[in-house]
Amino acid sequence: MAGSSFGNLFRVTTWGESHGKGLGVVVDGCPAGLNVDEELIQKFLNRRKPGSNPYGTPRKEGDVVSILSGIFEGKTTGTPISMIVRNESQKSSDYSEIASYYRPGHADYTFDMKYGFRDYRGGGRSSGRETIGRVSAGAIAKAILLETGISVMAYTKSIGPVSIDYSKCDEKSIEKSALYMPDLEASQLAEQYLNEKMGENDSVGGVVECIIKGLPAGIGSPVFDKLDANLGKAVMSIGAVKGFEVGSGFQAASMCGSVNNDGFKKDANGLVIKETNHAGGILGGISDGSEIILRAAFKPTPSIAKTQSTVNKDGEEIEINVKGRHDPIVVPRAVVVVESMVAITLVDMLFENMSSQMRYIKNFYKD
Amino acid sequence: MAGSSFGNLFRVTTWGESHGKGLGVVVDGCPAGLNVDEELIQKFLNRRKPGSNPYGTPRKEGDVVSILSGIFEGKTTGTPISMIVRNESQKSSDYSEIASYYRPGHADYTFDMKYGFRDYRGGGRSSGRETIGRVSAGAIAKAILLETGISVMAYTKSIGPVSIDYSKCDEKSIEKSALYMPDLEASQLAEQYLNEKMGENDSVGGVVECIIKGLPAGIGSPVFDKLDANLGKAVMSIGAVKGFEVGSGFQAASMCGSVNNDGFKKDANGLVIKETNHAGGILGGISDGSEIILRAAFKPTPSIAKTQSTVNKDGEEIEINVKGRHDPIVVPRAVVVVESMVAITLVDMLFENMSSQMRYIKNFYKD
Amino acid sequence: MAGSSFGNLFRVTTWGESHGKGLGVVVDGCPAGLNVDEELIQKFLNRRKPGSNPYGTPRKEGDVVSILSGIFEGKTTGTPISMIVRNESQKSSDYSEIASYYRPGHADYTFDMKYGFRDYRGGGRSSGRETIGRVSAGAIAKAILLETGISVMAYTKSIGPVSIDYSKCDEKSIEKSALYMPDLEASQLAEQYLNEKMGENDSVGGVVECIIKGLPAGIGSPVFDKLDANLGKAVMSIGAVKGFEVGSGFQAASMCGSVNNDGFKKDANGLVIKETNHAGGILGGISDGSEIILRAAFKPTPSIAKTQSTVNKDGEEIEINVKGRHDPIVVPRAVVVVESMVAITLVDMLFENMSSQMRYIKNFYKD
Amino acid sequence: MAGSSFGNLFRVTTWGESHGKGLGVVVDGCPAGLNVDEELIQKFLNRRKPGSNPYGTPRKEGDVVSILSGIFEGKTTGTPISMIVRNESQKSSDYSEIASYYRPGHADYTFDMKYGFRDYRGGGRSSGRETIGRVSAGAIAKAILLETGISVMAYTKSIGPVSIDYSKCDEKSIEKSALYMPDLEASQLAEQYLNEKMGENDSVGGVVECIIKGLPAGIGSPVFDKLDANLGKAVMSIGAVKGFEVGSGFQAASMCGSVNNDGFKKDANGLVIKETNHAGGILGGISDGSEIILRAAFKPTPSIAKTQSTVNKDGEEIEINVKGRHDPIVVPRAVVVVESMVAITLVDMLFENMSSQMRYIKNFYKD
Repeated sequence: MAGSSFGNLFRVTTWGESHGKGLGVVVDGCPAGLNVDEELIQKFLNRRKPGSNPYGTPRKEGDVVSILSGIFEGKTTGTPISMIVRNESQKSSDYSEIASYYRPGHADYTFDMKYGFRDYRGGGRSSGRETIGRVSAGAIAKAILLETGISVMAYTKSIGPVSIDYSKCDEKSIEKSALYMPDLEASQLAEQYLNEKMGENDSVGGVVECIIKGLPAGIGSPVFDKLDANLGKAVMSIGAVKGFEVGSGFQAASMCGSVNNDGFKKDANGLVIKETNHAGGILGGISDGSEIILRAAFKPTPSIAKTQSTVNKDGEEIEINVKGRHDPIVVPRAVVVVESMVAITLVDMLFENMSSQMRYIKNFYKD
Repeated sequence: MAGSSFGNLFRVTTWGESHGKGLGVVVDGCPAGLNVDEELIQKFLNRRKPGSNPYGTPRKEGDVVSILSGIFEGKTTGTPISMIVRNESQKSSDYSEIASYYRPGHADYTFDMKYGFRDYRGGGRSSGRETIGRVSAGAIAKAILLETGISVMAYTKSIGPVSIDYSKCDEKSIEKSALYMPDLEASQLAEQYLNEKMGENDSVGGVVECIIKGLPAGIGSPVFDKLDANLGKAVMSIGAVKGFEVGSGFQAASMCGSVNNDGFKKDANGLVIKETNHAGGILGGISDGSEIILRAAFKPTPSIAKTQSTVNKDGEEIEINVKGRHDPIVVPRAVVVVESMVAITLVDMLFENMSSQMRYIKNFYKD
Repeated sequence: MAGSSFGNLFRVTTWGESHGKGLGVVVDGCPAGLNVDEELIQKFLNRRKPGSNPYGTPRKEGDVVSILSGIFEGKTTGTPISMIVRNESQKSSDYSEIASYYRPGHADYTFDMKYGFRDYRGGGRSSGRETIGRVSAGAIAKAILLETGISVMAYTKSIGPVSIDYSKCDEKSIEKSALYMPDLEASQLAEQYLNEKMGENDSVGGVVECIIKGLPAGIGSPVFDKLDANLGKAVMSIGAVKGFEVGSGFQAASMCGSVNNDGFKKDANGLVIKETNHAGGILGGISDGSEIILRAAFKPTPSIAKTQSTVNKDGEEIEINVKGRHDPIVVPRAVVVVESMVAITLVDMLFENMSSQMRYIKNFYKD
Repeated sequence: MAGSSFGNLFRVTTWGESHGKGLGVVVDGCPAGLNVDEELIQKFLNRRKPGSNPYGTPRKEGDVVSILSGIFEGKTTGTPISMIVRNESQKSSDYSEIASYYRPGHADYTFDMKYGFRDYRGGGRSSGRETIGRVSAGAIAKAILLETGISVMAYTKSIGPVSIDYSKCDEKSIEKSALYMPDLEASQLAEQYLNEKMGENDSVGGVVECIIKGLPAGIGSPVFDKLDANLGKAVMSIGAVKGFEVGSGFQAASMCGSVNNDGFKKDANGLVIKETNHAGGILGGISDGSEIILRAAFKPTPSIAKTQSTVNKDGEEIEINVKGRHDPIVVPRAVVVVESMVAITLVDMLFENMSSQMRYIKNFYKD
């Protein structure tokens, strides 16, 4: 099944396995005339690289991107942008053992069921390295949004039991936290918690929140291609995500209408705005001009050194300890992945919205 | 933007407004040879009809479906199945007032922003009646699943503060509860809560849980078309849904790997199964053969009689009370909508999976 | 397989069988604010109605269209436009005989092979009546094009051996010819030829040419979604079409480059134009600003009263004479179908083109 | 606009420019378990390489393919197959002149109109080298078809005025002809004609015919996704193709029904077959089990050394002679491109057909 493409007018197709020759992406539908170079992509990719803090896997991954097509004299040409990150010499032998059993919480078993066998080296296509293509494309999507005055920013909202309130944080402190958690006190508590669990050979889950600013009202479509539905698919497609919500999200289920409804009022310039934002910036699947707020729940890293039960190739029940050095938490490195998927979705829906009114079309073609 | 179609091989296209001539759906890609008649669809549609309990709006809606194409001598022919539910004479005048202002929590404002104006009669395309097309198509999808041994069943998991544990319930009691809540004691508590809030001219949110049984392992695709990603889009596209989760969902974010991972073992027949099901039946975006469990968070009905602030057409800040009789909660009627969207998604992914291995293709074309 | 939709941003989904309850179409992605009413559609539909000339089947078909959704106060709302033409009481018994054998040149055999059985009444989904949905959608597409200064006009270029040269014709005389052949002398010759073949219980093929004026340069995409590729699919998808060509078409295959190449020059206003138009207005899959010229070859109507050999249900070789009154030629009625499919394709590609340059996007969202 | 992908279940996405870093393709939806290696692809690619005969451009192009993903231990894994052909050091300076004017018959002008500027080096994305991605994917598609007993074979049917009748040819002699024209006498005449035109600094067009054997009846869909419509798009999307036809094609337009209809009869095994094959193996958009026959008309190579008129960047009318060594005809090298696009289309439609009947689905999931 062809499931490696995302988007319609701005379409991203990723490829590559953890321990193959490399990973990459083709971005098709990028408009001509955008300034793009490898530095722009690399900066974004570096945010998902491990090793920048003690909670990322210490494996050294260069992850150097090359742009192979679609750029001429520093600008996009309107044709597909192909990008590649070559895998450096990785010892596949490290992974030979896992060929023989199914790691709990991993896709080993389901790949075998679907395809009859699997590329077991480092998880193959289900590895976290698969996000390299998403993030490379996300860098371009964010550049397009920047030109239209739209920003997308994600951060770590919670790690295990430690959760923060963004309204009390300073966006600038995100980069100061090893965990991308912009409340530095909470960030320290979370580090303590992480260290404790690492000591127990265990792993931890967390929540990423993403905030979109500057998105005009009117983006999204009323029925199946609701803005929140497409964002939901985008975010749920990231490995390890088990939940997605917008605005008040699951809390809305226990609220009353009189509290959850956001009244309309006028701002100083006479523009219609909302008094509150329980809706998270989306009404009826269409952006309402206020901030879009969404959250993704990440499960704990499935690879743990603690003893676990499973079944091996020969059908025997065995006990295993997953070897190798693995991130005890995926959240900090996933922040940029969430940003990327959100940005890709927004660009696609911005483009589709351009033909929503007859007068737009007349303006465009009659000028 | 063309956002009224869902699915790829099994494609559902809905149309219609609350107070137009009718609402309908075209189901394209339904295989030939399935027994389908209007009774099958009607039975499903009746589950979303209001008036069967005191918590549904007492407006009388016949909602009688007609099949217009795609069936010959009681069987599907493989060509598109067009279905229509005519709107009965509804007094549009009831809605004339809401033409002049934006109802909080509704899509009035965002439709105006997107399209320049709106069909204000009863919410037009953003009305809950839009789900008639989804449910009509869902009835067909469920019939296909039934033939392949797969069941999809949704129920009310929580209403406001009242929540139930499905493992302690009896599936057969769903229909006995006016709220489709299969713990009759809890159902009564929820009714009390609802009555209280109705007395306060307020509305209430809730959670719908859906359980899929019999789905073979191997369904879904590893990257963007993950089973949970497509289910997420399907469910998030239902009006009033603000959150979606699979398995342990948002709770996974505060769990440790050693708890959240599901160990593999063997059942009595020597088949590989899981010891627990925190994954909710999906690993790496692909079904693992155990039950799929997902949840949708519904916000409280936005139409409430309580006084609310908003802005009218002339740009004046006003106070309004939304008139007319509205459901104080959408959840019980939404149960069948969730089931429908889940079933539609599953059928599509089952079909796409049929070409996942070369030996399947050889078997198919060499027989 | 879901094959009843065409287009991406402007998406047309048709349904219905010749002798079912009716035929219809859902047009999704039509921009808001376009004036559309039933009269606009009906006028277009009437051009495909039989009975207006002696060469159309004399069956009376009312073919009255109803618009069921997507229009409010005379304007499109941006939501899907559903249209239906009810079939009038047709005696299915007329067709009972053809249930038992495969008509040569028809889809009877291939439907049975694909679906296991078929709706044999009047050809079911493979009937020429299937074009009702295409033409209803085409009327809307042409209205959008009209607003942007683009015209699409098709006519009968040849019938059997009688062929005309459009450059020597007057567009206004199309409607004066019973065969939509704007060279009235040739039209009379063609009528004589048709009468002769009808007398022999035979049928005749022909060529429809379509000319697009006012299309700006830059429409279409360089690789798979070339303008001519998408037009090719659109036109080849019309029943009975066996060939498609653009500009010099098949003749180009026997031409030299020095003749077939169109030199560029400047017009009186200093704009770049071409000296000739062998390219038919498309270079590298993208419109070049000159007229688009394309042709479709229609095979002779397969239903003929002449004796033919075939095989019946019981596997016996038999001789048949197809009864009923059938068009001896499909071309004149197909003229509006070609126009419709071309218009639908153009609208889709116009919309997609709106995000081809970064400066367009900035202009759109920064204004 | 995202127009670099083709196909639905078997989806091919190409990228790359003539003088960029390389060209490539991502093949998504290839089933797991197919034997694929670089030799298989290279063999196919070599058929489009220039230099094997005097009528191909003598530029040396290595065109060595690397497979970057999707293969494990010699077999496809079901995940995307990424392939790349690096461009060897090409002197872009050769092309600096063409940056300043529009070559007649090329896409220079239309790219500028669409994107605002263009990568002028060697035609950029509109170069014939763009077909490298198509052919690499085609090699995989043909391998899938081979496993299901389906063959696709194309050859040169005509060059300028020299045309051959395949029924009188021997398939094995295709490779013996420098022009892939399996009538060696005609091939020599065509060579003489080509030499003559090359001497006049001119170029020549031609026709490629493609024959599909072993395709079961029932492939294709009745309305927009007719087999011939999808093949039409596939073939029309190849650069320089100006016309497409199936079976009797444009000749059908001047035939009578009694001649063009193919009667049904029984073969020695009692199976239903056709007496003739004017339909070219497709009835109502669905394969009928006989040979599929289609043709593509290629225009003469637009790059000619003969003097031509055009307009330069400064808006001056100038005369040019296109320098560099160019193929005097594209047809022989295009034979494998036609084969590739046809094979890709067939694989996609074979996969989609697998869910056309309810009993197929039950067989698949109940076994």
